[in-house]
Amino acid sequence: MGLVTTATSRSAARSGRSRLTPEERRTQLLDLGVSLLATRSLDELTIDVLAEEAGISRGLLYHYFGNKQDFREAVVRRAVEDLVEQTAPPSEGEPLERLLASLTVYVDYVENNYQGYVSIVRAAASGNDTLRELYEQARTALTDRIFREDAQGTIIPETPETRLVVRAWSAFAEELVLAWAEDPASMTRDRLLDVLTASLPALVEILD
Amino acid sequence: MGLVTTATSRSAARSGRSRLTPEERRTQLLDLGVSLLATRSLDELTIDVLAEEAGISRGLLYHYFGNKQDFREAVVRRAVEDLVEQTAPPSEGEPLERLLASLTVYVDYVENNYQGYVSIVRAAASGNDTLRELYEQARTALTDRIFREDAQGTIIPETPETRLVVRAWSAFAEELVLAWAEDPASMTRDRLLDVLTASLPALVEILD
Repeated sequence: MGLVTTATSRSAARSGRSRLTPEERRTQLLDLGVSLLATRSLDELTIDVLAEEAGISRGLLYHYFGNKQDFREAVVRRAVEDLVEQTAPPSEGEPLERLLASLTVYVDYVENNYQGYVSIVRAAASGNDTLRELYEQARTALTDRIFREDAQGTIIPETPETRLVVRAWSAFAEELVLAWAEDPASMTRDRLLDVLTASLPALVEILD
Repeated sequence: MGLVTTATSRSAARSGRSRLTPEERRTQLLDLGVSLLATRSLDELTIDVLAEEAGISRGLLYHYFGNKQDFREAVVRRAVEDLVEQTAPPSEGEPLERLLASLTVYVDYVENNYQGYVSIVRAAASGNDTLRELYEQARTALTDRIFREDAQGTIIPETPETRLVVRAWSAFAEELVLAWAEDPASMTRDRLLDVLTASLPALVEILD
Protein backbone atom coordinates (compact mmCIF):
# COMPACT_ATOMS: atom_id res chain seq x y z
CA MET A 1 0.00 0.00 0.00
CA GLY A 2 0.94 3.61 0.06
CA LEU A 3 3.06 5.64 -2.16
CA VAL A 4 5.48 3.12 -3.63
CA THR A 5 2.78 0.91 -5.05
CA THR A 6 0.95 3.87 -6.48
CA ALA A 7 4.03 5.27 -8.14
CA THR A 8 5.12 1.90 -9.49
CA SER A 9 1.74 1.01 -10.93
CA ARG A 10 1.47 4.46 -12.47
CA SER A 11 4.85 4.04 -14.15
CA ALA A 12 4.01 0.51 -15.26
CA ALA A 13 0.80 1.70 -16.86
CA ARG A 14 2.68 4.39 -18.70
CA SER A 15 5.64 2.33 -19.85
CA GLY A 16 3.22 0.04 -21.68
CA ARG A 17 2.77 2.83 -24.19
CA SER A 18 5.16 2.99 -27.09
CA ARG A 19 6.04 6.68 -26.79
CA LEU A 20 5.73 9.19 -24.00
CA THR A 21 5.31 12.91 -24.41
CA PRO A 22 7.96 15.00 -22.58
CA GLU A 23 5.31 15.88 -19.98
CA GLU A 24 4.47 12.19 -19.43
CA ARG A 25 8.15 11.34 -19.24
CA ARG A 26 8.69 14.05 -16.63
CA THR A 27 5.72 12.76 -14.61
CA GLN A 28 7.12 9.24 -14.79
CA LEU A 29 10.49 10.46 -13.51
CA LEU A 30 8.79 12.38 -10.72
CA ASP A 31 6.85 9.26 -9.71
CA LEU A 32 10.12 7.38 -9.58
CA GLY A 33 11.67 10.19 -7.51
CA VAL A 34 8.75 10.05 -5.07
CA SER A 35 9.03 6.26 -4.73
CA LEU A 36 12.80 6.57 -4.10
CA LEU A 37 12.11 9.19 -1.44
CA ALA A 38 10.13 6.64 0.57
CA THR A 39 13.32 5.06 1.90
CA ARG A 40 15.67 8.04 1.55
CA SER A 41 15.93 11.48 3.05
CA LEU A 42 15.57 14.47 0.76
CA ASP A 43 19.34 15.05 0.99
CA GLU A 44 20.00 11.52 -0.22
CA LEU A 45 17.69 11.94 -3.20
CA THR A 46 20.12 13.18 -5.83
CA ILE A 47 20.03 13.51 -9.61
CA ASP A 48 22.69 10.76 -9.64
CA VAL A 49 20.47 8.33 -7.74
CA LEU A 50 17.52 9.07 -10.01
CA ALA A 51 19.67 8.76 -13.16
CA GLU A 52 20.87 5.35 -12.04
CA GLU A 53 17.40 4.09 -11.12
CA ALA A 54 15.82 5.45 -14.28
CA GLY A 55 18.69 4.22 -16.46
CA ILE A 56 19.10 7.59 -18.18
CA SER A 57 21.82 10.23 -18.23
CA ARG A 58 22.22 13.01 -15.71
CA GLY A 59 22.18 15.44 -18.61
CA LEU A 60 18.70 14.36 -19.62
CA LEU A 61 17.50 14.75 -16.03
CA TYR A 62 18.85 18.30 -15.93
CA HIS A 63 16.90 18.89 -19.13
CA TYR A 64 13.69 17.88 -17.30
CA PHE A 65 14.35 19.46 -13.91
CA GLY A 66 16.74 22.40 -14.37
CA ASN A 67 18.82 21.97 -11.23
CA LYS A 68 19.11 19.91 -8.06
CA GLN A 69 16.93 22.26 -5.99
CA ASP A 70 14.18 22.42 -8.65
CA PHE A 71 14.24 18.63 -8.88
CA ARG A 72 13.82 18.19 -5.11
CA GLU A 73 11.05 20.77 -4.97
CA ALA A 74 9.22 19.04 -7.84
CA VAL A 75 9.49 15.69 -6.05
CA VAL A 76 8.25 17.16 -2.76
CA ARG A 77 5.36 18.89 -4.56
CA ARG A 78 4.37 15.58 -6.12
CA ALA A 79 4.78 13.70 -2.80
CA VAL A 80 2.53 16.08 -0.87
CA GLU A 81 -0.04 16.06 -3.69
CA ASP A 82 -0.05 12.26 -3.43
CA LEU A 83 -0.45 12.45 0.34
CA VAL A 84 -3.37 14.86 0.10
CA GLU A 85 -5.02 12.79 -2.66
CA GLN A 86 -4.57 9.43 -0.97
CA THR A 87 -5.86 10.61 2.40
CA ALA A 88 -9.05 12.14 1.01
CA PRO A 89 -11.83 10.96 3.33
CA PRO A 90 -14.59 8.87 1.71
CA SER A 91 -17.59 11.00 0.78
CA GLU A 92 -20.02 8.65 2.50
CA GLY A 93 -20.38 7.77 6.17
CA GLU A 94 -20.51 9.32 9.62
CA PRO A 95 -18.01 12.15 10.26
CA LEU A 96 -15.86 10.07 12.62
CA GLU A 97 -15.84 7.07 10.27
CA ARG A 98 -14.67 9.32 7.45
CA LEU A 99 -11.99 10.80 9.70
CA LEU A 100 -10.84 7.31 10.74
CA ALA A 101 -10.59 6.20 7.10
CA SER A 102 -8.50 9.25 6.24
CA LEU A 103 -6.21 8.82 9.27
CA THR A 104 -5.72 5.12 8.51
CA VAL A 105 -4.31 6.03 5.10
CA TYR A 106 -2.16 8.73 6.71
CA VAL A 107 -0.63 6.20 9.13
CA ASP A 108 0.01 3.80 6.19
CA TYR A 109 1.64 6.63 4.32
CA VAL A 110 3.99 7.60 7.17
CA GLU A 111 4.91 3.94 7.76
CA ASN A 112 5.64 3.31 4.07
CA ASN A 113 7.47 6.59 3.47
CA TYR A 114 9.07 7.21 6.84
CA GLN A 115 12.54 8.40 5.74
CA GLY A 116 11.28 10.75 3.09
CA TYR A 117 8.36 12.05 5.16
CA VAL A 118 10.54 12.92 8.15
CA SER A 119 13.00 14.72 5.89
CA ILE A 120 10.19 16.72 4.26
CA VAL A 121 8.82 17.76 7.66
CA ARG A 122 12.33 18.84 8.70
CA ALA A 123 13.09 20.63 5.46
CA ALA A 124 9.75 22.43 5.71
CA ALA A 125 10.48 23.60 9.23
CA SER A 126 13.90 24.91 8.30
CA GLY A 127 14.95 27.80 6.14
CA ASN A 128 13.76 26.73 2.67
CA ASP A 129 10.77 28.94 1.86
CA THR A 130 9.49 26.88 -1.09
CA LEU A 131 9.48 23.63 0.87
CA ARG A 132 7.88 25.33 3.85
CA GLU A 133 5.18 26.72 1.57
CA LEU A 134 4.52 23.29 0.02
CA TYR A 135 4.25 21.77 3.47
CA GLU A 136 1.93 24.53 4.69
CA GLN A 137 -0.26 24.07 1.60
CA ALA A 138 -0.50 20.36 2.35
CA ARG A 139 -1.34 20.99 5.99
CA THR A 140 -3.96 23.53 4.98
CA ALA A 141 -5.46 21.08 2.46
CA LEU A 142 -5.51 18.33 5.09
CA THR A 143 -7.18 20.51 7.71
CA ASP A 144 -9.51 22.38 5.31
CA ARG A 145 -11.30 19.16 4.53
CA ILE A 146 -12.20 18.82 8.20
CA PHE A 147 -14.40 21.88 7.64
CA ARG A 148 -15.59 21.09 4.12
CA GLU A 149 -19.33 20.84 3.84
CA ASP A 150 -20.86 17.96 1.92
CA ALA A 151 -24.08 15.94 2.03
CA GLN A 152 -23.17 14.70 5.53
CA GLY A 153 -22.32 18.17 6.83
CA THR A 154 -18.86 19.19 8.08
CA ILE A 155 -16.79 17.06 10.44
CA ILE A 156 -16.24 20.13 12.65
CA PRO A 157 -18.13 23.48 12.42
CA GLU A 158 -15.74 26.27 11.38
CA THR A 159 -14.96 29.20 13.70
CA PRO A 160 -11.67 31.07 14.33
CA GLU A 161 -11.29 28.99 17.51
CA THR A 162 -11.92 25.61 15.87
CA ARG A 163 -9.51 26.62 13.06
CA LEU A 164 -6.77 27.20 15.62
CA VAL A 165 -7.48 23.96 17.48
CA VAL A 166 -7.64 21.87 14.29
CA ARG A 167 -4.32 23.32 13.12
CA ALA A 168 -2.74 22.47 16.50
CA TRP A 169 -4.39 19.03 16.39
CA SER A 170 -2.68 18.35 13.05
CA ALA A 171 0.67 19.01 14.79
CA PHE A 172 -0.43 16.56 17.52
CA ALA A 173 -1.38 13.94 14.93
CA GLU A 174 1.87 14.35 13.00
CA GLU A 175 4.02 14.11 16.13
CA LEU A 176 2.04 11.14 17.48
CA VAL A 177 2.38 9.16 14.24
CA LEU A 178 6.08 10.03 13.80
CA ALA A 179 6.89 9.15 17.43
CA TRP A 180 4.91 5.91 17.12
CA ALA A 181 6.66 4.99 13.84
CA GLU A 182 10.00 5.43 15.67
CA ASP A 183 8.86 3.16 18.51
CA PRO A 184 5.90 1.02 17.36
CA ALA A 185 6.06 -1.13 20.52
CA SER A 186 4.74 1.79 22.59
CA MET A 187 1.18 1.40 21.30
CA THR A 188 -0.72 -0.97 19.00
CA ARG A 189 -1.63 0.34 15.56
CA ASP A 190 -5.37 0.07 16.33
CA ARG A 191 -4.88 1.99 19.53
CA LEU A 192 -2.96 4.68 17.66
CA LEU A 193 -5.87 5.05 15.21
CA ASP A 194 -8.34 5.22 18.11
CA VAL A 195 -6.35 8.01 19.75
CA LEU A 196 -5.93 9.91 16.48
CA THR A 197 -9.62 9.75 15.64
CA ALA A 198 -10.96 10.44 19.13
CA SER A 199 -8.50 13.27 19.80
CA LEU A 200 -10.03 15.72 17.34
CA PRO A 201 -13.58 15.73 18.81
CA ALA A 202 -12.12 15.61 22.35
CA LEU A 203 -10.09 18.76 21.69
CA VAL A 204 -12.88 20.60 19.90
CA GLU A 205 -15.27 19.73 22.72
CA ILE A 206 -13.15 21.80 25.11
CA LEU A 207 -14.39 24.85 23.18
CA ASP A 208 -18.05 24.15 23.99
CA MET B 1 7.76 38.64 33.49
CA GLY B 2 9.48 36.91 30.65
CA LEU B 3 12.98 36.52 29.60
CA VAL B 4 14.03 40.12 28.96
CA THR B 5 13.27 41.30 32.49
CA THR B 6 15.01 38.30 33.99
CA ALA B 7 18.13 38.79 31.91
CA THR B 8 18.25 42.54 32.57
CA SER B 9 17.80 42.23 36.32
CA ARG B 10 20.44 39.49 36.44
CA SER B 11 22.89 41.73 34.59
CA ALA B 12 22.03 44.71 36.76
CA ALA B 13 22.69 42.70 39.90
CA ARG B 14 26.03 41.61 38.51
CA SER B 15 27.19 44.97 37.19
CA GLY B 16 26.87 46.37 40.71
CA ARG B 17 29.98 44.39 41.57
CA SER B 18 33.29 46.02 40.94
CA ARG B 19 34.91 43.11 39.07
CA LEU B 20 33.52 40.09 37.29
CA THR B 21 35.29 36.77 36.88
CA PRO B 22 35.60 35.61 33.23
CA GLU B 23 32.84 33.07 33.90
CA GLU B 24 30.54 35.79 35.29
CA ARG B 25 31.35 38.05 32.36
CA ARG B 26 30.52 35.25 29.92
CA THR B 27 27.23 34.61 31.73
CA GLN B 28 26.40 38.30 31.57
CA LEU B 29 27.07 38.34 27.81
CA LEU B 30 24.93 35.24 27.34
CA ASP B 31 22.09 36.88 29.27
CA LEU B 32 22.37 39.86 26.97
CA GLY B 33 22.39 37.55 23.93
CA VAL B 34 19.24 35.82 25.19
CA SER B 35 17.48 39.13 25.76
CA LEU B 36 18.45 40.30 22.25
CA LEU B 37 17.09 37.05 20.83
CA ALA B 38 13.62 37.91 22.15
CA THR B 39 13.03 40.30 19.24
CA ARG B 40 15.42 38.79 16.69
CA SER B 41 15.72 35.51 14.85
CA LEU B 42 18.75 33.36 15.51
CA ASP B 43 20.17 34.39 12.11
CA GLU B 44 19.92 38.05 13.08
CA LEU B 45 21.74 37.48 16.36
CA THR B 46 25.32 38.10 15.33
CA ILE B 47 28.56 38.72 17.18
CA ASP B 48 28.42 42.26 15.71
CA VAL B 49 25.01 42.96 17.24
CA LEU B 50 26.12 41.63 20.60
CA ALA B 51 29.38 43.62 20.45
CA GLU B 52 27.48 46.81 19.81
CA GLU B 53 24.90 46.20 22.54
CA ALA B 54 27.54 45.15 25.07
CA GLY B 55 29.88 47.98 24.08
CA ILE B 56 32.86 45.68 23.72
CA SER B 57 35.01 44.54 20.83
CA ARG B 58 34.22 41.66 18.51
CA GLY B 59 37.65 40.26 19.34
CA LEU B 60 36.78 39.99 23.01
CA LEU B 61 33.51 38.23 22.14
CA TYR B 62 35.40 35.68 20.04
CA HIS B 63 37.61 35.16 23.09
CA TYR B 64 34.50 34.21 25.09
CA PHE B 65 32.58 32.25 22.46
CA GLY B 66 35.08 30.82 19.96
CA ASN B 67 33.03 31.30 16.79
CA LYS B 68 29.64 32.38 15.53
CA GLN B 69 28.11 28.90 15.70
CA ASP B 70 29.40 28.27 19.26
CA PHE B 71 28.01 31.65 20.28
CA ARG B 72 24.55 30.89 18.90
CA GLU B 73 24.50 27.45 20.45
CA ALA B 74 25.50 28.90 23.82
CA VAL B 75 22.70 31.48 23.59
CA VAL B 76 20.13 28.82 22.63
CA ARG B 77 21.31 26.56 25.46
CA ARG B 78 20.86 29.43 27.92
CA ALA B 79 17.46 30.39 26.42
CA VAL B 80 16.03 26.88 26.74
CA GLU B 81 17.44 26.55 30.26
CA ASP B 82 15.62 29.77 31.10
CA LEU B 83 12.41 28.48 29.54
CA VAL B 84 12.56 25.21 31.48
CA GLU B 85 13.41 27.03 34.72
CA GLN B 86 10.73 29.70 34.37
CA THR B 87 7.96 27.28 33.49
CA ALA B 88 8.62 24.97 36.44
CA PRO B 89 5.17 24.23 37.92
CA PRO B 90 4.64 25.32 41.55
CA SER B 91 5.24 22.46 43.97
CA GLU B 92 1.91 23.05 45.75
CA GLY B 93 -1.62 22.73 44.45
CA GLU B 94 -3.88 20.42 42.48
CA PRO B 95 -2.33 18.83 39.35
CA LEU B 96 -4.38 20.95 36.94
CA GLU B 97 -3.67 24.17 38.85
CA ARG B 98 0.04 23.41 38.69
CA LEU B 99 -0.25 22.68 34.96
CA LEU B 100 -2.16 25.93 34.37
CA ALA B 101 0.49 27.94 36.26
CA SER B 102 3.25 26.38 34.15
CA LEU B 103 1.38 26.93 30.88
CA THR B 104 0.64 30.55 31.77
CA VAL B 105 4.37 31.22 32.07
CA TYR B 106 4.94 29.36 28.79
CA VAL B 107 2.42 31.59 26.96
CA ASP B 108 4.08 34.68 28.51
CA TYR B 109 7.42 33.38 27.33
CA VAL B 110 6.31 32.83 23.74
CA GLU B 111 4.62 36.25 23.64
CA ASN B 112 7.69 38.02 25.00
CA ASN B 113 10.23 36.11 22.94
CA TYR B 114 8.28 35.38 19.77
CA GLN B 115 10.96 36.09 17.14
CA GLY B 116 13.68 34.19 18.89
CA TYR B 117 11.47 31.31 19.95
CA VAL B 118 10.12 30.69 16.45
CA SER B 119 13.65 30.75 15.05
CA ILE B 120 14.84 28.25 17.68
CA VAL B 121 11.94 25.89 16.88
CA ARG B 122 12.80 26.15 13.17
CA ALA B 123 16.54 25.76 13.66
CA ALA B 124 15.88 22.72 15.86
CA ALA B 125 13.68 21.10 13.23
CA SER B 126 16.25 21.64 10.48
CA GLY B 127 19.64 20.10 9.96
CA ASN B 128 21.63 21.44 12.92
CA ASP B 129 22.18 18.47 15.23
CA THR B 130 23.29 20.48 18.27
CA LEU B 131 20.29 22.80 18.15
CA ARG B 132 17.95 19.86 17.58
CA GLU B 133 19.45 18.13 20.60
CA LEU B 134 19.06 21.23 22.78
CA TYR B 135 15.45 21.55 21.70
CA GLU B 136 14.76 17.86 22.32
CA GLN B 137 16.35 18.14 25.77
CA ALA B 138 14.07 21.07 26.56
CA ARG B 139 10.99 19.23 25.31
CA THR B 140 11.95 16.18 27.34
CA ALA B 141 12.48 18.33 30.44
CA LEU B 142 9.10 20.02 29.90
CA THR B 143 7.23 16.74 29.44
CA ASP B 144 9.17 14.76 32.09
CA ARG B 145 7.83 17.00 34.78
CA ILE B 146 4.29 15.99 33.81
CA PHE B 147 5.25 12.54 35.12
CA ARG B 148 7.40 13.63 38.05
CA GLU B 149 6.18 12.38 41.35
CA ASP B 150 6.02 14.71 44.31
CA ALA B 151 3.92 15.11 47.45
CA GLN B 152 0.80 15.66 45.30
CA GLY B 153 1.49 12.65 43.06
CA THR B 154 2.12 12.91 39.32
CA ILE B 155 0.02 15.02 36.96
CA ILE B 156 -0.33 12.01 34.64
CA PRO B 157 0.59 8.38 35.48
CA GLU B 158 3.50 7.19 33.30
CA THR B 159 3.08 4.39 30.75
CA PRO B 160 4.54 3.98 27.22
CA GLU B 161 1.15 5.15 25.87
CA THR B 162 0.87 8.25 28.06
CA ARG B 163 4.52 9.08 27.18
CA LEU B 164 3.62 9.08 23.49
CA VAL B 165 0.45 11.12 24.01
CA VAL B 166 2.17 13.69 26.24
CA ARG B 167 4.95 14.10 23.66
CA ALA B 168 2.37 14.66 20.92
CA TRP B 169 0.42 16.98 23.23
CA SER B 170 3.52 19.14 23.62
CA ALA B 171 3.56 19.55 19.80
CA PHE B 172 -0.14 20.50 20.01
CA ALA B 173 0.58 23.06 22.74
CA GLU B 174 3.54 24.55 20.88
CA GLU B 175 1.61 24.85 17.61
CA LEU B 176 -1.47 26.28 19.36
CA VAL B 177 0.51 28.97 21.18
CA LEU B 178 2.58 29.89 18.10
CA ALA B 179 -0.52 30.06 15.86
CA TRP B 180 -2.33 32.12 18.49
CA ALA B 181 0.65 34.49 18.89
CA GLU B 182 0.52 35.04 15.10
CA ASP B 183 -3.22 35.81 15.24
CA PRO B 184 -4.23 36.74 18.81
CA ALA B 185 -7.69 37.86 17.66
CA SER B 186 -8.68 34.25 17.00
CA MET B 187 -9.05 33.43 20.69
CA THR B 188 -8.83 35.28 24.01
CA ARG B 189 -5.74 34.62 26.12
CA ASP B 190 -7.85 33.11 28.93
CA ARG B 191 -9.55 30.81 26.47
CA LEU B 192 -6.15 29.75 25.09
CA LEU B 193 -5.02 28.85 28.62
CA ASP B 194 -8.26 26.92 29.20
CA VAL B 195 -7.73 24.90 26.03
CA LEU B 196 -4.05 24.27 26.80
CA THR B 197 -4.76 23.08 30.32
CA ALA B 198 -7.87 21.01 29.55
CA SER B 199 -6.34 19.39 26.45
CA LEU B 200 -3.81 17.25 28.30
CA PRO B 201 -6.31 15.39 30.53
CA ALA B 202 -8.79 15.20 27.61
CA LEU B 203 -6.18 13.47 25.43
CA VAL B 204 -4.93 11.16 28.16
CA GLU B 205 -8.52 10.19 28.99
CA ILE B 206 -8.86 8.66 25.52
CA LEU B 207 -6.42 5.98 26.71
CA ASP B 208 -8.74 4.83 29.54
